Amino acid sequence: MKKLFIKALLLLLIFTNAASAADPLPSWNDTAPKKAIVAFVEQVTREGSPDFVPVAERVATFDNDGTLWAEQPIYFQFLFAIDRVNALAPQHPEWKTKEPFASLLKGDMKRALAGGEHAMLEIVMSTHAGMTTEAFEKIVTDWITTAKHPDTGRLLTEMVYQPMLELLTYLRANGFKTFIVSGGGIEFMRPWTEKVYGIPPEQVIGSSIKTKFELRDGQPVLVRLPEINFIDDKADKPVGIQMHIGRRPIASFGNSDGDLQMLQWTTAGRSARLALIVHHTDADREWAYDRESAIGRLDKALDEAQKKSWTVVDMKLDWKFIYVFEK
Amino acid sequence: MKKLFIKALLLLLIFTNAASAADPLPSWNDTAPKKAIVAFVEQVTREGSPDFVPVAERVATFDNDGTLWAEQPIYFQFLFAIDRVNALAPQHPEWKTKEPFASLLKGDMKRALAGGEHAMLEIVMSTHAGMTTEAFEKIVTDWITTAKHPDTGRLLTEMVYQPMLELLTYLRANGFKTFIVSGGGIEFMRPWTEKVYGIPPEQVIGSSIKTKFELRDGQPVLVRLPEINFIDDKADKPVGIQMHIGRRPIASFGNSDGDLQMLQWTTAGRSARLALIVHHTDADREWAYDRESAIGRLDKALDEAQKKSWTVVDMKLDWKFIYVFEK
Repeated sequence: MKKLFIKALLLLLIFTNAASAADPLPSWNDTAPKKAIVAFVEQVTREGSPDFVPVAERVATFDNDGTLWAEQPIYFQFLFAIDRVNALAPQHPEWKTKEPFASLLKGDMKRALAGGEHAMLEIVMSTHAGMTTEAFEKIVTDWITTAKHPDTGRLLTEMVYQPMLELLTYLRANGFKTFIVSGGGIEFMRPWTEKVYGIPPEQVIGSSIKTKFELRDGQPVLVRLPEINFIDDKADKPVGIQMHIGRRPIASFGNSDGDLQMLQWTTAGRSARLALIVHHTDADREWAYDRESAIGRLDKALDEAQKKSWTVVDMKLDWKFIYVFEK
Repeated sequence: MKKLFIKALLLLLIFTNAASAADPLPSWNDTAPKKAIVAFVEQVTREGSPDFVPVAERVATFDNDGTLWAEQPIYFQFLFAIDRVNALAPQHPEWKTKEPFASLLKGDMKRALAGGEHAMLEIVMSTHAGMTTEAFEKIVTDWITTAKHPDTGRLLTEMVYQPMLELLTYLRANGFKTFIVSGGGIEFMRPWTEKVYGIPPEQVIGSSIKTKFELRDGQPVLVRLPEINFIDDKADKPVGIQMHIGRRPIASFGNSDGDLQMLQWTTAGRSARLALIVHHTDADREWAYDRESAIGRLDKALDEAQKKSWTVVDMKLDWKFIYVFEK
């Protein structure tokens, strides 16, 4: 028994060493961003070090569109809205002659969006409001199971960045709590973020419309109202973070000017910080866009990243694989 | 070594049995509420049982005032506001003649609140807004360290119910995530809930005022604005729960009509549910109040509890100890 015990101990030691030697970020090339991530995580988790951060304070926030999954040629939530307009059209004969719905139903996106923000809002409210929270959850869950990307034909949930999934797992393995902080709809994300990213609904922060509690035949429901509650973008990302988390992240990850204030808020805290921007530079494997793009514009935040030495991922150079389906 | 090893194993076994045999709710009498709690927890955690609930879905929500700590003779947050009015008075000479401040500074609470909701709002905004989130956190942290109850002379953080602390610990030991869902200010609670209840800031839901992101000399701050953002009470408690947690609790704990809709929302879900009301029945050890009380009125929710067989704690009969300092 004594021998067996020692043998077990030895096996355990070997296993532990093997596990710690395994690369937690295999889809990342051994370039500067990966080194910065690993150095940061080792720095804040080393007990006794002056940079040590207790587990409870290891908060990491991630933008979603363009940071965890793709956002071209159009935000995926807008694909959802288009599909919903088409599905709901039979119940809305008036849409045949009413903009922006008429153009949208004809597939003329450009004309549908000519009405600007007002047109966008009309499309969002007609497809995201008017039902209970439970009904909306089911609609999203059903849709995301089969929704495919218009260019690649892949499931949208496969248009997720493999290196970022590894990063989420690596941070969580080191005691971090990972949150999404997205301009996208909070209830559009929650039905699938746990399965796809391992991020539970209570760690998803996003834009929202108002809801109202009602008793319907004695049964309580929450009804989604066609009224904006909160737009979780730009200067309101730190507001959303404070509202939901109540402490400042020590690491934040974004890809556009919409994330600038979140990165500023994160890095202005005391102790070690990590700010990382995913720069879309790979026109072959993904899309290449930054300062001039209507979607995911990265201009001011790119300047600030250079000025403040934030970590910038060059997708073409720094990522071995892009999508989960490549692995 | 072999003998030592076996001895250690035996000790471990004994220790484990002793621990599991220990009563997790020693401050509760062996009456119906304790039995209902233990039965519920065993039911939802028994693997393979049809009532089993996965850990991720074990969400429990707790009201704060009157449920986790006392709320008489006046909500403790109002004691904070009074102390702040006194502290800020030198900077506001105009308060000497301006209501509700003039009466408040003279200690005439009744007259100060004669202006109703408007007076209350003025007091709240003048003491809770106008500073950064960091400055407010420090003000609350400093205050709560020494703030005492006007009748008992105890620290307010000692006016916490020992049976409820045991309940929080018991639920967490069984995989529950415990949240506060209070009408009180979210940023008034967060600085101390982790220390006092073991509930981290990201699991605190409460009322809030709006905040605004600003760069001050290049440093990002969140400024607290004198504008209501959300009142987390009554029919808006389920709204707050959905906004912050995104899933329905399986257990909820309250003490007043302000918790009625939270209890309705919780119990309307599928699978086993626990709804519990703390009924203040002990005029000797605490306070006795319900249907007629201005603070913590329990009327409609008490009727509904009887109708729907929710668990009602009779503090006098069901609790061996009330406050943490009694133990």
